Amino acid sequence: MTNEPTPAPAPIAHLSESGLLERILPALPSSDAVEIGPGDDSAVVRLASPRLVVSTDTLTEGQDFLLPATRPEWIGAKAAVQNLADVAAMGARPTALVVALSAPGTADVTTLEGISRGLAARAGRDGAVVVGGDLGAADALSLTVTALGALAEGHAPILRTGARAGDVLAVGSPLLGRSGAGLAWILADRHHEALAADVVAWHNAPDPRLELGWTAARRPDGTARASAMIDVSDGLVRDGGRLARRSGVVIDLDREALAADVRALVDLAAPLGADPWSWVLHGGEEHAMLATFPADDVPEGFRPIGVVHRPAAGEEPFILLDGRTVPGEGFDHFA
Amino acid sequence: MTNEPTPAPAPIAHLSESGLLERILPALPSSDAVEIGPGDDSAVVRLASPRLVVSTDTLTEGQDFLLPATRPEWIGAKAAVQNLADVAAMGARPTALVVALSAPGTADVTTLEGISRGLAARAGRDGAVVVGGDLGAADALSLTVTALGALAEGHAPILRTGARAGDVLAVGSPLLGRSGAGLAWILADRHHEALAADVVAWHNAPDPRLELGWTAARRPDGTARASAMIDVSDGLVRDGGRLARRSGVVIDLDREALAADVRALVDLAAPLGADPWSWVLHGGEEHAMLATFPADDVPEGFRPIGVVHRPAAGEEPFILLDGRTVPGEGFDHFA
Repeated sequence: MTNEPTPAPAPIAHLSESGLLERILPALPSSDAVEIGPGDDSAVVRLASPRLVVSTDTLTEGQDFLLPATRPEWIGAKAAVQNLADVAAMGARPTALVVALSAPGTADVTTLEGISRGLAARAGRDGAVVVGGDLGAADALSLTVTALGALAEGHAPILRTGARAGDVLAVGSPLLGRSGAGLAWILADRHHEALAADVVAWHNAPDPRLELGWTAARRPDGTARASAMIDVSDGLVRDGGRLARRSGVVIDLDREALAADVRALVDLAAPLGADPWSWVLHGGEEHAMLATFPADDVPEGFRPIGVVHRPAAGEEPFILLDGRTVPGEGFDHFA
Repeated sequence: MTNEPTPAPAPIAHLSESGLLERILPALPSSDAVEIGPGDDSAVVRLASPRLVVSTDTLTEGQDFLLPATRPEWIGAKAAVQNLADVAAMGARPTALVVALSAPGTADVTTLEGISRGLAARAGRDGAVVVGGDLGAADALSLTVTALGALAEGHAPILRTGARAGDVLAVGSPLLGRSGAGLAWILADRHHEALAADVVAWHNAPDPRLELGWTAARRPDGTARASAMIDVSDGLVRDGGRLARRSGVVIDLDREALAADVRALVDLAAPLGADPWSWVLHGGEEHAMLATFPADDVPEGFRPIGVVHRPAAGEEPFILLDGRTVPGEGFDHFA
């Protein structure tokens, strides 16, 4: 507790749309790529090539974040990361973001400023800038971010379809399961406990090494080193399963390779009576790069966690753990 | 009334996310510009140049449309138009859209199919295709569309800042005020009356000539014919006022030039006791191109509705009607 005065609430309904934009826009740095930034009908951005890479995603209060358990800056950072990760997972570097922010009139202007600041700061870490936006009224706070990048001429996008028998599955993260662990502590209403601080912060604003997507996953000449790539947004098993099905292969996760992740989370699982394997295998919102590589060419930053096989006769492309069906299942938005 | 059986309700909560995507994606045609369409982490689209033009906007149920007074196809068409118009108003041709759709689990799958179909159909009219999307859960139905186009090398964007004293203000629409009229009939709960059918349809799915933005507003050699441009999204006075302020000029609307629009709406105003001038001057969501041109160079498709002056000493840049302050005011999202 400190004796600092709490700022007076400033609901956005007391500001005009232009007044609100004036509060939010100064948080947005620009870059050499931006020919026309916010303030006209559209932004104009110079890409590295005309081969646009684009992805869009929405975060909605109550569905994708719980306001009392997070911070405005984290909401912005997470919205940036989940979209930047989709561009990175094509082997492309993001250049710009646009954001559509909807909020109830009772929302505090400092909340929107914080979201904007967090979004711009996290994007800036990878050299991307916010070039445009839209503000609208809605009953719930939500933000839709569209991430934009480009592929150089001659550079193939790294798709979900290219994994081959003999490849190794590798993940661009030293530790999986933190986001799932953080969510469990939030849902148990114990997110203020010191023990959980790191995983709660990681769930609210995961910070994976996205640059692995456009650096390590390609060779210095720009050719693809990764045969297939995706980011871990819905869980290792679910997203790995997507790679397997789209590539027509079987991916066999290595229990021993993931045991270190599980051990790192055991002390966080025990107080909740939770199973840390569930966090590692099924926890979503990590946004780490998940890729397949030739067995002798796994680059720095990625660690092997499985192998790729041809399906046996009559076998469906799928994902396994040490050759067996994986227990539990991932996340479906509408289920 | 017909005797056709009503299809059984199919709430999206009964479908998996992938099952829902399978229902929606077939409504999306592709084009030669699309290298990678929906289904991977991002889409890859070949633009006409690396100078990306991008804009984003959200439509939210209850704020931007009223479900009982519209149709899913119209919601999709309106979301397309309002975003395509922002690209067109830069003097650029749209190439692609991405869409983030949020819906409650109780929403019917046919509603989402209809939105998707309306979006793709309206975009297709201007040669743009839907290349990616996101589906999420939310308490209210909303969709955020991002429109993407490009400016050829050497082609200047047409900004809000270029209007000059002596220019003519012209609008790329034969009739303003229809969207405002339609909204008034909807808010009066009389949108089913035959008299209002055309304006209700126009409000729900305005269909302006967007191509005027990248055709008539430029000369055949690509140089800008329009000195400044915007689209009428918040009303003629409000958006014209933006052109005036950003260009540092006074725009004087010509009452006589707008009188034909008012006369066309008189019979729709009388039953509601409404003022058709308010619809013509302040009605939003027309999305027609509004541009300034040299007086001797107003192209086909645009009609003159005002003139541009230098501000007198001590006068603020502003918009007037026959030299006087315009009565009433436009729309502020949070006011």
